[in-house]
Amino acid sequence: MPETQTQVTFASRPTGWVTADNFALRQAPMPEPGAGELLLRNIYLSVDPYMRGMMEDRRSYAAPLEPGDVMAGRVVGEVVASNHPDYAVGDHAFAMARWEEYSVLTGSEDMRKVDPALAPISWNLGVLGAPGLTAYVGMVALMGPPEPGQQIFVSAASGAVGQVATQLAKRHGARVVGSAGSDAKVDFLTDRLGLDAAFNYKRYDSYAAALDEHCPDGIDFYFDNVGGEALDAVLARANPFARLAECGMISQYNLTEPYGLTNLTQVNRMRLTLRGFIVRDHFELLPGYLKDMARWLKDGSVVYVEDRAEGLENAPAAFLAMLKGENFGKQVVQIGADTSAG
Amino acid sequence: MPETQTQVTFASRPTGWVTADNFALRQAPMPEPGAGELLLRNIYLSVDPYMRGMMEDRRSYAAPLEPGDVMAGRVVGEVVASNHPDYAVGDHAFAMARWEEYSVLTGSEDMRKVDPALAPISWNLGVLGAPGLTAYVGMVALMGPPEPGQQIFVSAASGAVGQVATQLAKRHGARVVGSAGSDAKVDFLTDRLGLDAAFNYKRYDSYAAALDEHCPDGIDFYFDNVGGEALDAVLARANPFARLAECGMISQYNLTEPYGLTNLTQVNRMRLTLRGFIVRDHFELLPGYLKDMARWLKDGSVVYVEDRAEGLENAPAAFLAMLKGENFGKQVVQIGADTSAG
Repeated sequence: MPETQTQVTFASRPTGWVTADNFALRQAPMPEPGAGELLLRNIYLSVDPYMRGMMEDRRSYAAPLEPGDVMAGRVVGEVVASNHPDYAVGDHAFAMARWEEYSVLTGSEDMRKVDPALAPISWNLGVLGAPGLTAYVGMVALMGPPEPGQQIFVSAASGAVGQVATQLAKRHGARVVGSAGSDAKVDFLTDRLGLDAAFNYKRYDSYAAALDEHCPDGIDFYFDNVGGEALDAVLARANPFARLAECGMISQYNLTEPYGLTNLTQVNRMRLTLRGFIVRDHFELLPGYLKDMARWLKDGSVVYVEDRAEGLENAPAAFLAMLKGENFGKQVVQIGADTSAG
Repeated sequence: MPETQTQVTFASRPTGWVTADNFALRQAPMPEPGAGELLLRNIYLSVDPYMRGMMEDRRSYAAPLEPGDVMAGRVVGEVVASNHPDYAVGDHAFAMARWEEYSVLTGSEDMRKVDPALAPISWNLGVLGAPGLTAYVGMVALMGPPEPGQQIFVSAASGAVGQVATQLAKRHGARVVGSAGSDAKVDFLTDRLGLDAAFNYKRYDSYAAALDEHCPDGIDFYFDNVGGEALDAVLARANPFARLAECGMISQYNLTEPYGLTNLTQVNRMRLTLRGFIVRDHFELLPGYLKDMARWLKDGSVVYVEDRAEGLENAPAAFLAMLKGENFGKQVVQIGADTSAG
């Protein structure tokens, strides 16, 4: 075992766009697990939009980071030392941990073992983890399920959450339209995921114009990952009693001047419901979801794409790229050797 | 019976604020009821915020008026001729009718008889009618009920809907705060209705400042009658899982440039639910509501205030004054002699 390890710390609060300067790399002594604890060698780190919120000093579900803190994040790794009765050396496990090579954990960090035989272990950070469950909660458990023939729109549709949300909606027989930020993602949505329509929002003057073209019968259900202008355009095109699952508003997280929404009066006129949710309120649904999703992945009826960056030192850049939509599929960072696939 | 009657027509679509020029008075032949129809002498006319929406040519629950149409509106009147099996001359009745002295009705216009012995017949346009039921739907049936100790905020709290909504919330044991546009209304809210706090928003630089003072523990439930800046300020102060009953957004109806809401990201962060509703989706709740409310009015535990204008020719002015918040309580227009009180 090495005597030191690398960590990524939160160096300073961003104003507007996050930059590389908001992070710092440092060497720290190798931690040792105490009584009842274990040491995880982190193999994959997940970078997610919610982390941007933790960098703000404002009211939110996630406690804000303080400058100097090691960045928090979900990981999948291998147990390399254990004083914990439920984990043995060699086990693979998921945990809420930190941006670092090795983490000491107590086992209470939403931790669970993962089975390398079921799927690549990194998938536990995506389709078989919190982003996948997020899609299920918003599209099915909390606000849905969508009904056959309903007009569904999903923004950031090829992302970690969007690609699962769109496929769940298709399974329920809805007409599903997705937006994304590149032609390659649009092709993926229509050709691989079988969406009824998809568009590259960058090729349109406005979301309004794009939605007029691709959702000519209005919108019955919107799975919102981006907020801002897209949300405003959906409000203006929502059908009576439409539901808006408010999963995230990534277009707004790096703005100093948020977009001003002007179509909220449609909430009353069209009797709309907007509901915000976060996945950690619904982790009791995870076992049932994982059982279904593992089967669908195995039989090929659900497709999953992830985007892997390499090296802990590149985690800040991968995080920034994800916030800018430059990733293609769920963004993870490989920070250690993966021997799980044998 | 006179040979002609006065009607108020919709003369032109407003851009921005409604003005007197958007209406016209005209004389029309006295209508005669056909087979199965009746003739109602309209005594009280209700002017309501939803009518502003009908003057717009946009997607809404209410079909837009076309220039030249007689203005639509709820009335209470006296049957003066009847070919309808359920209505006799001398009956008092409520109906969805028009801004005119006499209306021919088929009986299918949400029509019901009203009992002059129960309460002043005009109250059927307010606390014993659609505005009262609106308050009940938003505060209790659809989004509630509020829980004891919860922090509740109601905007336009002394208005037709607001005064009922606040009193329903108080009955459920909540801490209730109301906003209004004059000191006299604020006194009414605290002294007559027993609200825990109330404020005149015109005396504050912003709703944000007013809410910081009067809702120091945040907001668990917002009954929204105004939208715009007040809604944005509530979003920033909403507690986790807060519910926002979106009843109306009167601050926005006469603007050519709507207020741009910038705090919608709180919907996700705080897991908020915004739900728009309109009363006509819930008329099946009216009989039960009326039974309870008539009892509460009789025992004095609910207070009701209305503001009466006189004369059909003054209906446009009363409508404009209501949109500007110059009314004190539910705005009605008396357009004929009321002999119901004996």
